[in-house]
Amino acid sequence: MAKEKKVEQITDMEVDFAQWFTDVCTKAELVDYSGVKGLFILRPYGYALWENIQSYLDRRFKELGHENVSMPMLIPESLLQKEKDHVEGFAPECAWVTQGGSEELPERLCIRPTSETLFCDHWSHVVHSWRDLPMKYNQWCSVLRWEKTTRPFLRGREFLWQEGHTLHATEEEAREETLQMLEVYADCCEHLLAMPVIRGNKTDKEKFAGAVNTYTIECMMHDHKALQSGTSHYFGDGFARAFNITFADRNNQQSVPHETSWGMSTRIIGGLIMTHGDNSGLVLPPRMAPIQVIVLPIAQHKPGVADKAGELVARLKAAGIRVRGDFSDNSPGWKFANWEMKGVPLRLEIGPKDLENGQCVAVRRDNGEKAFLPLDRLEESVPALLEAVQQGLFDKAKKNLDEHCFAAYSLEDARALQAEKGGFIKTMWCGDPACEAKMKEQAGMSSRCIPFQQEHLSDVCPICGRPAKHMVYWGVAY
Amino acid sequence: MAKEKKVEQITDMEVDFAQWFTDVCTKAELVDYSGVKGLFILRPYGYALWENIQSYLDRRFKELGHENVSMPMLIPESLLQKEKDHVEGFAPECAWVTQGGSEELPERLCIRPTSETLFCDHWSHVVHSWRDLPMKYNQWCSVLRWEKTTRPFLRGREFLWQEGHTLHATEEEAREETLQMLEVYADCCEHLLAMPVIRGNKTDKEKFAGAVNTYTIECMMHDHKALQSGTSHYFGDGFARAFNITFADRNNQQSVPHETSWGMSTRIIGGLIMTHGDNSGLVLPPRMAPIQVIVLPIAQHKPGVADKAGELVARLKAAGIRVRGDFSDNSPGWKFANWEMKGVPLRLEIGPKDLENGQCVAVRRDNGEKAFLPLDRLEESVPALLEAVQQGLFDKAKKNLDEHCFAAYSLEDARALQAEKGGFIKTMWCGDPACEAKMKEQAGMSSRCIPFQQEHLSDVCPICGRPAKHMVYWGVAY
Repeated sequence: MAKEKKVEQITDMEVDFAQWFTDVCTKAELVDYSGVKGLFILRPYGYALWENIQSYLDRRFKELGHENVSMPMLIPESLLQKEKDHVEGFAPECAWVTQGGSEELPERLCIRPTSETLFCDHWSHVVHSWRDLPMKYNQWCSVLRWEKTTRPFLRGREFLWQEGHTLHATEEEAREETLQMLEVYADCCEHLLAMPVIRGNKTDKEKFAGAVNTYTIECMMHDHKALQSGTSHYFGDGFARAFNITFADRNNQQSVPHETSWGMSTRIIGGLIMTHGDNSGLVLPPRMAPIQVIVLPIAQHKPGVADKAGELVARLKAAGIRVRGDFSDNSPGWKFANWEMKGVPLRLEIGPKDLENGQCVAVRRDNGEKAFLPLDRLEESVPALLEAVQQGLFDKAKKNLDEHCFAAYSLEDARALQAEKGGFIKTMWCGDPACEAKMKEQAGMSSRCIPFQQEHLSDVCPICGRPAKHMVYWGVAY
Repeated sequence: MAKEKKVEQITDMEVDFAQWFTDVCTKAELVDYSGVKGLFILRPYGYALWENIQSYLDRRFKELGHENVSMPMLIPESLLQKEKDHVEGFAPECAWVTQGGSEELPERLCIRPTSETLFCDHWSHVVHSWRDLPMKYNQWCSVLRWEKTTRPFLRGREFLWQEGHTLHATEEEAREETLQMLEVYADCCEHLLAMPVIRGNKTDKEKFAGAVNTYTIECMMHDHKALQSGTSHYFGDGFARAFNITFADRNNQQSVPHETSWGMSTRIIGGLIMTHGDNSGLVLPPRMAPIQVIVLPIAQHKPGVADKAGELVARLKAAGIRVRGDFSDNSPGWKFANWEMKGVPLRLEIGPKDLENGQCVAVRRDNGEKAFLPLDRLEESVPALLEAVQQGLFDKAKKNLDEHCFAAYSLEDARALQAEKGGFIKTMWCGDPACEAKMKEQAGMSSRCIPFQQEHLSDVCPICGRPAKHMVYWGVAY
């Protein structure tokens, strides 16, 4: 017996973007809340998104010669304290294990917030000679940071990520690695997730605890706020010295290696939702979509309809497309709304009339465009439509980014532009953290990055009037 | 300048099997020790073994309709306590988080030792109707159990595993799932790891905390001890009742679902080492080997040798073989020992004379057999040799198992057989835990399983003389 299920409504994104985001996360069945604040359950549909990112990045990492390893999840407090800047950055948000079984532990153990200290401790055991370098390691794991406010994907006390850690004989090689891995993240965002990025350097204030340089890719969300989407760090030899890692170089001289690390996390899924989603729910770029095509039989009890729909599913599957048919007894209206909520890029409808005409109806999730597709050429037309959706989503996001970058020539300009239009405000900057702090205080914006692609807007810092060193992107960030 | 590196020696396995095992783990560069007892670092070569197991199992799980998810790593103490038998089994070995950032937590949080409670809590939110069933979930993660004595792979306070959790409308379906997943584990052991298994039921004493039935696959190690290599559990509706999970069945009656879970861990890598290894180190079955073939140029400075070796590497790679060439300036002796230690299944040597004769020398790691292979047919001969090594290792392990299973007809027989010959001792059993305890006390053996393949050895339990119910395998276990 068919039972009309209710299509769940979500908050309008223009009314309350934060609530819209939470609604999409739960109604599209990406996450569930657990009994511990800030620890989220990734449900199958949400985890499948992470698996697609994993599979892309893991392949790229391995092609570049990185090897996966597994480090412990617990760090003794004394080990965390070896690098001074690093411990200052992370200790305040550590979760501490103090009891094992029925015993009080002699030393507190921190659940890893990041693993630089573990990698360095290991390298101090195994690196002896230039022949042992470079070490190019990665691990897939979860980390804990005891945040005060939490939101699915965007800020969790626990989140999944990968952390790459590498060790090199020379500064030059380490710096090359750092930039190379940022480029891999940029590719992942642009080609897989259809999210255009701005690449740049973090200011000293915004860089990773213990790093010499932090490079970042910054994405713009639908609401024109910024999301830091992937970072790579050059550490110089600071950690290596703190952990006493040395190696005999080619001339048999003791030398100190140079280190990098780089990470991308499930946070990017939050970015994906906020970049492409709309008031009907999630919108997924085809390369990311666990289900790329949903086939819906219309009036499926009519002769031949269900069979033909099943045949289309089989044919598209054979053509390498991630396709599913919905043969449930839910109403067409419910099915439309459900698969739109799930963000499936393409819907194919086939009913009795379509059968007669040897065609089906294709509806794009990104812009609602309909097309009639001759059934005998689906193996060409469907992949082409999926590519069009992928490109369409990237173009739309790029337009949003381009139309919301504004140059400002005074602090007041910057404040007003952010207040009125939102987005990324670009200004020159003298390099003084005091000016950076003033921008935060008076215009509510943090520095997003010093972009690699610099523009010369003027000669002076609009905040203090002294000579300018760089152009900076400022924004309100997640 | 070529420098003669020292080949590191390992302990003789017949002298001290435990030390031999530890030596192989470290010298083959599978693991390193971290700063916390019982938390091991899986180095690239060790982690690659786990990746091969993951890739096999993940494919099998998905083919059978399971979906991956990610559950939190922390469990509130109150949640862990919901199922009485379960908490009694696990609470004594939990690691507890008591501080988050600078705050004392109002409730202790346990790092997951296993995740039944988390899955059940989630299901209580999302399961409402028979349409929602079955739930067939899996997660890849690490878990913590605060063990007293620890060893790489075999017993870690933290270890990597997968845990499958499923929920079904009927007992029958849940029991089928439990047996099906045991069969997947048996396939993984026998076909991928070349480890023959005995399938069976655990006794009540040995089953998982909270389970109605625990099924197991038991493997025999080189030293004739047992390793429990994978388990699957049927829980009945105990957890579902404790967590208040109900669903409306097809007749719209409220009903309680039936649950299963099943897991395989990095422990199996310890089993792999102890099944196939020898006094030269690790021995890997080709399907598991991160490097299946190592190509060694002999006198590589002689004209044409290095080029030809490089060409062989490229050809074998193109044929889909995981191959590497060792062109380092280490001595041939060091290279032989190093790649033997790493367990690479096949070594190909090519020197000036081989070039003249259009051949190379192939040496099998499992039995040392040498063969001359014509260079023009390597794409056929090498895969055939790899298959022969895979089968050879399985056959050798099967012979070890078959030759170390002994029937006993009295407790004294059982004790003597174990003391003199080791292995699995099979006896009839009345089913009384008191007799099981007596076997442990007097013969030092735990029950490994009540095998699915029963034999009728006699009518009575040899321990108490009462009527026998089952035949049991007993053994000394890791």
